[in-house]
Amino acid sequence: MATYQAPLREIQFVLHDVLNATARFGEAGLADATRGTVDGVLDEAAKLIQERIAPLNATGDAQGCRFRDGAVEAPAGYAEAYRLFWQAGWVGLSAAPDHGGQGLPYTLSKVVEEMVCSANVGFALYPGLTSSCFEAIEANGTEEQKRLYLPKLATGEWTGTMCMTEPQAGSDLAAVKTRATPNGDGSYALEGGKIFITSGEHDLAGNIIHFVLARLPDSPVGIKGLSTFVVPKFLLKPDGTPGERNRVRCVSIEHKMGMHGSVTCSMAFEGARGWLVGQPNQGIQNMFVMMNLARIMVGFQGLGQCELATQNAIRYALDRRQGKAFNGGEVIADHPDVRRMLLTMKSVTEGGRVLGYETALHVDLAAHHPDAAVREAAQDWVDLTTPLVKAFLTDSAFELGSMAVQVYGGHGFIREHGIEQIVRDSKILALYEGTNGIQAMDLVRRKLMLHNGRLPKRFFERVQAELARGGADGADLGFIERPLRSAVQELAAATQWLQESFKREANDAGFGAVDYLRAFALVMLGYNWLRMARAAARAGDPALRDAKRVTAEFFATRLLPQAAALCGIVRNPAAPLMQLPATRLQ
Amino acid sequence: MATYQAPLREIQFVLHDVLNATARFGEAGLADATRGTVDGVLDEAAKLIQERIAPLNATGDAQGCRFRDGAVEAPAGYAEAYRLFWQAGWVGLSAAPDHGGQGLPYTLSKVVEEMVCSANVGFALYPGLTSSCFEAIEANGTEEQKRLYLPKLATGEWTGTMCMTEPQAGSDLAAVKTRATPNGDGSYALEGGKIFITSGEHDLAGNIIHFVLARLPDSPVGIKGLSTFVVPKFLLKPDGTPGERNRVRCVSIEHKMGMHGSVTCSMAFEGARGWLVGQPNQGIQNMFVMMNLARIMVGFQGLGQCELATQNAIRYALDRRQGKAFNGGEVIADHPDVRRMLLTMKSVTEGGRVLGYETALHVDLAAHHPDAAVREAAQDWVDLTTPLVKAFLTDSAFELGSMAVQVYGGHGFIREHGIEQIVRDSKILALYEGTNGIQAMDLVRRKLMLHNGRLPKRFFERVQAELARGGADGADLGFIERPLRSAVQELAAATQWLQESFKREANDAGFGAVDYLRAFALVMLGYNWLRMARAAARAGDPALRDAKRVTAEFFATRLLPQAAALCGIVRNPAAPLMQLPATRLQ
Repeated sequence: MATYQAPLREIQFVLHDVLNATARFGEAGLADATRGTVDGVLDEAAKLIQERIAPLNATGDAQGCRFRDGAVEAPAGYAEAYRLFWQAGWVGLSAAPDHGGQGLPYTLSKVVEEMVCSANVGFALYPGLTSSCFEAIEANGTEEQKRLYLPKLATGEWTGTMCMTEPQAGSDLAAVKTRATPNGDGSYALEGGKIFITSGEHDLAGNIIHFVLARLPDSPVGIKGLSTFVVPKFLLKPDGTPGERNRVRCVSIEHKMGMHGSVTCSMAFEGARGWLVGQPNQGIQNMFVMMNLARIMVGFQGLGQCELATQNAIRYALDRRQGKAFNGGEVIADHPDVRRMLLTMKSVTEGGRVLGYETALHVDLAAHHPDAAVREAAQDWVDLTTPLVKAFLTDSAFELGSMAVQVYGGHGFIREHGIEQIVRDSKILALYEGTNGIQAMDLVRRKLMLHNGRLPKRFFERVQAELARGGADGADLGFIERPLRSAVQELAAATQWLQESFKREANDAGFGAVDYLRAFALVMLGYNWLRMARAAARAGDPALRDAKRVTAEFFATRLLPQAAALCGIVRNPAAPLMQLPATRLQ
Repeated sequence: MATYQAPLREIQFVLHDVLNATARFGEAGLADATRGTVDGVLDEAAKLIQERIAPLNATGDAQGCRFRDGAVEAPAGYAEAYRLFWQAGWVGLSAAPDHGGQGLPYTLSKVVEEMVCSANVGFALYPGLTSSCFEAIEANGTEEQKRLYLPKLATGEWTGTMCMTEPQAGSDLAAVKTRATPNGDGSYALEGGKIFITSGEHDLAGNIIHFVLARLPDSPVGIKGLSTFVVPKFLLKPDGTPGERNRVRCVSIEHKMGMHGSVTCSMAFEGARGWLVGQPNQGIQNMFVMMNLARIMVGFQGLGQCELATQNAIRYALDRRQGKAFNGGEVIADHPDVRRMLLTMKSVTEGGRVLGYETALHVDLAAHHPDAAVREAAQDWVDLTTPLVKAFLTDSAFELGSMAVQVYGGHGFIREHGIEQIVRDSKILALYEGTNGIQAMDLVRRKLMLHNGRLPKRFFERVQAELARGGADGADLGFIERPLRSAVQELAAATQWLQESFKREANDAGFGAVDYLRAFALVMLGYNWLRMARAAARAGDPALRDAKRVTAEFFATRLLPQAAALCGIVRNPAAPLMQLPATRLQ
């Protein structure tokens, strides 16, 4: 069975040695988040997650959720574990204290999220979407809506959903048909059907708050005619406690490849009472506030699964004996191809952790830093890296899951080992909150173009500055500096080519977007590995230094060189390939 | 639900226009296999497979196999479909007529295998392992063994198994412990436990013939002390019909990620009567006769799943509407990133089909051609390409399955669409019959080194000869000739580097093997696409010509360039990366 040990030492290395996070928290006025507090909080979280949540991963996968007469029963143990989790304050870790949260950095809540998502990613979706619903109401709700919903969502006593998708409206939200008609009392009657609603119905919380995308009467067609509504499962009594059942119900649940512990509902809104959140016809903007954070969250789900795959594969490879390796080693970790897989997993997971944490740190800086220029630069970083966090970390989860199965050999295909579950659970991460193809389009069509290309320009400046620091730490890291320098050059050329391509042919950027995103992520991880190798050389722990150095060298010589090839591929015109009428593909 | 239409036109294009297969059959004395016969046979096979076997793919996945009191029940409909399949002669298509087969080319049986593996890869394993068992007994059995077992295995009236793996002996067969003790009457008593036995027990056939790797008393330890035995489920009566139950039984079946229609058994041999096949202590050699063909078979399982993923993704993308594409198209196949995925799938599947069929064709030539030099060259081709067929086509099945899910978006994650099943079913293909890492080691350690490097040398000569033909067909194919020329150069350099690496450091080749195999496969597919583009230009069908040209250009500009990057990566020494003691990976 897959087991999970929170990688606390590695987490601390990234937060403290690589990102110097507590100093940045301090600058941003998050002075409570001292090193002592941070480490203590993570220790506590790790205990609960390892002991109470991780053991439900395999059982939840085997049992799945049960649907009967409109009610959903989560797998055995989920309700109790969720109660422990929210009551201990983990859901509200970074929510504002005046809404019932604990006011710690967002970064910290993401580290906890990584751990929960390693332990049991299906479980993690119950509190995960709750945060998204909280953020959406916090950003655009009325004072009354905030007073009614936020404290219960902040703590996680109630859970939340995001109701966007309809059968005909997946990636294309312009096609949403659900209607909201004014009731005359300030509320609206919602009619329509939504699909793929995570946690739409379950037995974990006293109320479920749906955040719903729908169309007001006489709204413009398409994307500009959408509004957002809050629709509680139980209407609130005047004292704010759950009362009468609202006319929204779960009509069926999906049978999925994985994520069996998380329920995915088809919801019917049959005159359900809801209240407009934000301005009419501003629904897409309201959704995007939350959606950007949701995309980072999904990236952390991916990171969690990367870690789970990596640590289990390493444990297995240190235990399993099959033949003698060339170096005389007797465990399969000494066979060179297994070593290659383990170093791939390790370098992607550890380098990906820096990517995720740094984006989260910049969310904190963008929200709280007193200096507007720092806030702006931080927001640029968040905007640029969000599609990388979402797409690269989730693609990696699936790839590393598959690689972990490969390390286990035939045993990996057997369900009781719990490794194939990683492959099944993580595939959805590349699909929801915008497919990874859509992330790549967001990167090339929006993020490269914003403010005249300021976002990638700032990124390249940071990497160049790091490279220019040279061997200041006394460690000769030329083995990574050289390939990173040339990969950055290739990436800059591809970036420019894409920025210019919009004047020529939008399909060029569309065709190359996924390859470009991957190249960008590889360069980002190269930058991260350079900083990790330098930080480890400074840290004074020879074991850490050696492990980081070898992993950095692996990444620099085996994975990073793929970036240049991808950048070359990106700079091919798409027109000849789009010429063929689609029907001729058959 | 995933559906399957046999791609007969494409199959015929590859056989007739690209490989000129019937002429080669004729040269090799397989004169019955005329174009008319070949096309007629494939038409017939396609009908049965589409109508009777494909519909059981989803239901078999949902039901799985049932185990009770030592008996296994295959999913509903399997027994009946299998009876139709073997009685129509499809199992024995290429077996020798004097053993009950139909004597048609092996190539043809592989084309049928591809189709069955698209329709229902779990079902395909019942006849698949039967062929392997047949081949093993045909190669090394006594005349009496051949007489007793081959006719029933040839037709598929009885099915066969390969019993190799034990819990401690997966990739390392040297650790096999099952013992065979002489009974004094020419038979042996087998004692031991085997795991992961495909079709070890089921209700599809009147008898099950196990081909078992075991150890004679006083045999040398390790790999040189293994022998092979034939162990029938039912001992044969003097008239050759099944009689008394032998002391071999299924003790449990595995619950797997996928392949639910195929049963995977743990078998107990408790004094089971068996008969030595071949010479004592020659078990590994005997196994390898069959194993090489089994590896090609698994490659065809991969090809079948590639086709299934590709054709379903294309159908869905031509039907599904989400927003308007840049080119004004209204189906998602017109969105550039979806087009990129479809062309990836199409170029890999169609290029991979040429790889598979050409290897199969060379199996026929190596077995039957009257000219010894042709036989030798053909065998070289088979030896070199078997690891490519096995590893590349099965890795591609998993990747294309995942890509098909991506094309379906969130719907791909839902079981009822039948697309995620491709991901789950195909993962095992990369693991069994030697993991794909082991295939890569076979390529670099054995196949590159055999006969002083004659195998890759011959390959490079063939590709160069094809390139030297230039634009003889009047089509300007510089867009693929140029990148292929440079990729071949890089591959040749990597090949030489690996051949020399064994004098230095075996870990170098081991570390780079998987990347090298992938680079080799990309070059092979580049060679195939050049030939396909030329053949299509000759064929006089403008629709075919245009589709092949665009797909070739996609492959040449988007996938083939990765080969050079991989070849560069391969040529990095592994020593610095193997330095870290394995325990420090944690």
